[in-house]
Order: sequence, then C-alpha cells, then structure tokens
Amino acid sequence: MNSFSHKGNRKLSIAELERKSIEEFKDAEKLPLILVLDNVRSLHNVGSVFRNADAFAVQKIYLCGISATPPHREINKTALGATESVDWEYVKDTKSVVEKLKKEDYGVYALEQTHASILLSDFETEANKVALIFGHEVKGVQQEVIDLCDGAIEIPQLGTKHSFNVSVSAGIAMWELYKKMKL
Amino acid sequence: MNSFSHKGNRKLSIAELERKSIEEFKDAEKLPLILVLDNVRSLHNVGSVFRNADAFAVQKIYLCGISATPPHREINKTALGATESVDWEYVKDTKSVVEKLKKEDYGVYALEQTHASILLSDFETEANKVALIFGHEVKGVQQEVIDLCDGAIEIPQLGTKHSFNVSVSAGIAMWELYKKMKL
Repeated sequence: MNSFSHKGNRKLSIAELERKSIEEFKDAEKLPLILVLDNVRSLHNVGSVFRNADAFAVQKIYLCGISATPPHREINKTALGATESVDWEYVKDTKSVVEKLKKEDYGVYALEQTHASILLSDFETEANKVALIFGHEVKGVQQEVIDLCDGAIEIPQLGTKHSFNVSVSAGIAMWELYKKMKL
Repeated sequence: MNSFSHKGNRKLSIAELERKSIEEFKDAEKLPLILVLDNVRSLHNVGSVFRNADAFAVQKIYLCGISATPPHREINKTALGATESVDWEYVKDTKSVVEKLKKEDYGVYALEQTHASILLSDFETEANKVALIFGHEVKGVQQEVIDLCDGAIEIPQLGTKHSFNVSVSAGIAMWELYKKMKL
C-alpha cells in the first residue's frame, strides 16, 4: 500500500476520460445484460438506471407498466443524455417481456428479497445472457413476474431499512454482473 | 441453474425481513468503513448515501463543506430514517477530516478518476479500516483533498457519460468493500 504516487493523482479532465460518442457507443460491444423496469415509479430512478446502463454498456432496457419513458425532462435530469445512447423499449406487460427473454435464452432474475433469494455475492448462472428485473419502489417486483423468473437475487442488508434505492441496487447488481461477464 | 424452486420465491414481508431497530443498529458491530462527503450538493444524494450506509452498517458519515445535514425533509425523502440509525458529524473542512482519519490509521481513498486511480475491481489495501471520500456532483473530490489521500479508486465506465450518480457510485464502492471486509 501507499506505493501510490501523489504526483500521478491529478484528476482527469473530461477530454482525458476519452468517453465514447453516442455513435461509438451504439456500435460498441455490449455486456450480455438486459434490464427490465417493472413499474418503477420515480423519474429520478428511471434516469439513474439509464446512466448506470450507459456506464456498464448494457444491451437494452425494457420499461414496463407505469415506468415512464424518455424523452422526459425529469428523467434526463439524472440520465444526462444516457437515454440517447442506451437502447430501450416500452412494453406494458412485464410478464410478456420475461417470457420473450426466456425464449431467447436469457437467465431472468428479479432483484427481490424472497424466501429463496440468492445473495448477490453467491450468485452464479449458467446462462450466457442475463436479464435483471427491478420493481416498484415500495411494492417491489410483482409476485406474478417473480414466479416466471429463473430466480431472485438479494443484496445483503445489515441495517434498519427494508431496501436500497432502486437505482443504487441496480448499480450494485450491474457492477457485480459486469465483473463476472467483463467485456 | 434452475434448480431453484418457484414455490420458495414468495416475497418476504416487512416483518419477515427482520431488520434491526435503531437501538439494535446502534449497538451492532459495524463495518470498519467511514464515508466522507466532500461538498455533495444534492439532498437526494446525501439521503441516499445515508440509506446505503445503513444497509452496509457503516461506522460513520462525515458531511463536509456544502454537504447538507439532517434533519432535512429533502434528505429524509431518500434516507427514509437512516439519518437516525447511522452516526454522522458535520466538519466544514474536508482536509481536516482526512488528516484525522489518517492519524487513526484509516486507509483514505477518494472515489475519483485520476491519472493514477486504481480500478475498484483491483483495489486492495493493507489498512484494517477504510475511509472513502465522495465529491461534488460536477467538480468531484477537491484536488487538494485527493492529494492528502492514500489513493484514488475508479469504477470502470464503458459508456458515453463521465460519471455515475454519487449515491450509485457510493453504493457500488460500499458493496465491494463490504464483500472484502464482510462482518
């Protein structure tokens, strides 16, 4: 530790970050990961999930049920343009999306605390492609949607509150899958 | 895969989650992790970091500079009461907090993209206790604060945007350290 050189720790400028343009992003290889928002109510959360999906080069976001869709000023306050880079589609019925993805050989998992949920740290799948479902801020993923999934994944929580913010749990779950699937 | 039983995947009720009471949380063992918010502007982000800190049983949050402090209605919209469980303190000057924590043998790391930043997936430290510093939504962690740190940690990003939302990057970094330090 601390072999680290302070001299080298100058912050990178925006140009030095060398991020992709929207066109480059569209053409770039994606993580074999799809996100499904099952009635995510908050525009802030929808926008923040787009921003996470851009960072981890996710294939696509399905916006379902009451989840709002771009273009929307409030979504863009947190998406900051990621609604332009990340592919997305609105499908009213979440169950039909799960059924479609399963037919396409995605391993489909709800982020949810159930009687049989697997801890994110222990999560393994034989599927080459994964879809993660995130639910309503209060009600979570619909039980009938969970029942169609290959399983439920739970982020361990040691505190007093019942759950994470949706965009935070989405970020944590994407990070874990990104490490496993690394491009 | 799919040895998973659908029957067992009924969602847990709030009672079944068996979360700690505030009193139980105060007495419980904590992760040897401290968070420092260096001029985090958004009340939503401050609240969401509290909620993450509750979930990962973090020791303490230092709120510095322009970072707002509880009690605040807008902070509680995302903290949802976690400002009551998690220990926190306001200290105006972030640098003095870093100096204090280093004297107390914390390994102090800024979440920041620098010329020498370590990827979160590669992060290792010999320190038994860690402090993570998160910065302003646009300007990031102050350079003069970074210069005092033991290093900078970067979450890899493959997309078009420059950074994650602060509460999301905090969640991801806490999760990674939680796994390494596991209670």
